[in-house]
Amino acid sequence: MKKLINSVENVLSESLDGFAAAHADIVVLGDERKFVRRRTLKPGKVALVSGGGSGHEPLHAGFVGTGMLDAACPGQVFTSPTPDQMVAAVEAVDTGAGALFIVKNYEGDVMNFEMAAEMAGREVLTVVTDDDVAVEKSTWSTGRRGVAGTLVVEKVVGAAAEQDRPLADLQALGRDVNARTRSMGVALTSCTVPAAGNPTFTLAEDEMEMGVGIHGEPGRRRVRLATADAIAEEMLGAILGDLSPPAGSQCLLLVNGFGGTPSMELYLMVNAARKILAGRGLTVSRHLTGSLVTSLEMAGCSITVTILDDATRTLWDAPVHTAALRW
Amino acid sequence: MKKLINSVENVLSESLDGFAAAHADIVVLGDERKFVRRRTLKPGKVALVSGGGSGHEPLHAGFVGTGMLDAACPGQVFTSPTPDQMVAAVEAVDTGAGALFIVKNYEGDVMNFEMAAEMAGREVLTVVTDDDVAVEKSTWSTGRRGVAGTLVVEKVVGAAAEQDRPLADLQALGRDVNARTRSMGVALTSCTVPAAGNPTFTLAEDEMEMGVGIHGEPGRRRVRLATADAIAEEMLGAILGDLSPPAGSQCLLLVNGFGGTPSMELYLMVNAARKILAGRGLTVSRHLTGSLVTSLEMAGCSITVTILDDATRTLWDAPVHTAALRW
Repeated sequence: MKKLINSVENVLSESLDGFAAAHADIVVLGDERKFVRRRTLKPGKVALVSGGGSGHEPLHAGFVGTGMLDAACPGQVFTSPTPDQMVAAVEAVDTGAGALFIVKNYEGDVMNFEMAAEMAGREVLTVVTDDDVAVEKSTWSTGRRGVAGTLVVEKVVGAAAEQDRPLADLQALGRDVNARTRSMGVALTSCTVPAAGNPTFTLAEDEMEMGVGIHGEPGRRRVRLATADAIAEEMLGAILGDLSPPAGSQCLLLVNGFGGTPSMELYLMVNAARKILAGRGLTVSRHLTGSLVTSLEMAGCSITVTILDDATRTLWDAPVHTAALRW
Repeated sequence: MKKLINSVENVLSESLDGFAAAHADIVVLGDERKFVRRRTLKPGKVALVSGGGSGHEPLHAGFVGTGMLDAACPGQVFTSPTPDQMVAAVEAVDTGAGALFIVKNYEGDVMNFEMAAEMAGREVLTVVTDDDVAVEKSTWSTGRRGVAGTLVVEKVVGAAAEQDRPLADLQALGRDVNARTRSMGVALTSCTVPAAGNPTFTLAEDEMEMGVGIHGEPGRRRVRLATADAIAEEMLGAILGDLSPPAGSQCLLLVNGFGGTPSMELYLMVNAARKILAGRGLTVSRHLTGSLVTSLEMAGCSITVTILDDATRTLWDAPVHTAALRW
């Protein structure tokens, strides 16, 4: 296992310390590193809290800040955080307007956030994201997995929360954005969980995993490496087949690297995806490209499409100031 | 070779098309894809032009925009752009105040930018960056290599150019920032140049290349993989030994991923570097962390330290609006 680490036990804590120090203008690390919270809270605003297993950075801690999350709870690598983390986070960031949990659809996360919502003794609602069209059920999930589309939900709902909209409205908005959003991924190589020490799966030199999950879970099929155009065609075919957007729709195109993919390849995939979307009569009116919802050092990418209306687009465009997203 | 591409011949052009489409609010792609230029020029401002071989993205095209570069000329992967590219770029972005070339110290780049300066028929000055302390001479360079510190020069000089400072002042500033800046890198894996099809070098499962260059050039020595703390200690030892900053100095710490390194490891390296710098009596007053000056999908990182004074820090903090850096 080749990693820039000191010891398997301290990967998460040392990384969180570095993150909190590097972005001390934006975030504060909670006691016992239970959560990363926004440094400056906005009284009266609903608190947005997310979290999940680590190894997907910058999701979620990199999205804590003005216009997005108020707190993120980091679990061990690919392991759900515990309910006491979410409870501590809510106590730290809820200014009285209640809290909204944004939770990726994995059994451990859903269960732990549910327990935390009960334990918190405050008004808490939840949005579960399940944007991955690759499979209906996976190793760690019942129903579709929550993947890169979670970022879109966090950004749009984060902008709405900044306008002091009430909790129930934000939950409805989050569910709506999730319903407008679909993703699918492909892996060219595996990742290695530090505590495991070996690759999660193996692929031959000419193979790829089409429909892979962000923990390296199996996808639809293991096939021979195809061209970027063919990969984009299959991913967008599945995404658009499920979304069924009316021709003429506007969309957000998120091409997301899994951690080991050069920027050059991500933009090449943007180009491939744009041609296909144009051929289907869709207009890409907003772009986001980068390694934002990752699987450690996995090579590969996912494509996410969100169908935009004027309101969603305006919220997407609203200012955001976090470690990983700023505009 | 596992890459998200359609054909080796079209990697660069398809990637540039995707980049230009995704960031059409900020950049325009020049004719025949000779350069990427800022969409909105500022009349009377010195034009900042950089470029170099592709494969280091987001350097340089990702740094084109307000507060940083006016144009970037992309060569083929790890191959200098040609003089006609720089000439076309200068013609497109020089509004009359002259142009400053920012050039990484590699023989091909230095020669081609020099020819372009002669051919341009305009007032052109040059800053050559050579921040890599690993080796004095490398495969492609005479003298030290220009690596991630180039970003710092581009950011600081870009901010000063935005204040309409004259060309000669900007050249002097660029040279000063370069002189305050040192870097060193380590590779855990090689990268693969698409046209070559095979890894540039090979490392055993327990080896790393200490002092690697951003084209995979040999560094100081190939040794057994060490801890993050030991790696940071060796890199900062070389950097600070060369910089000799007075105790109490303030610095910018740039931890840069080479393309295949997870965010989690980069922030762990930030933590390691901060401890060492504090032990040397240096204050890290500014941070930048990310995969910003890359070597395709190489795993590993570099550390860059720039000694800051008030003027440099103020220019670093000035607003920047590019595809890859925004604040």
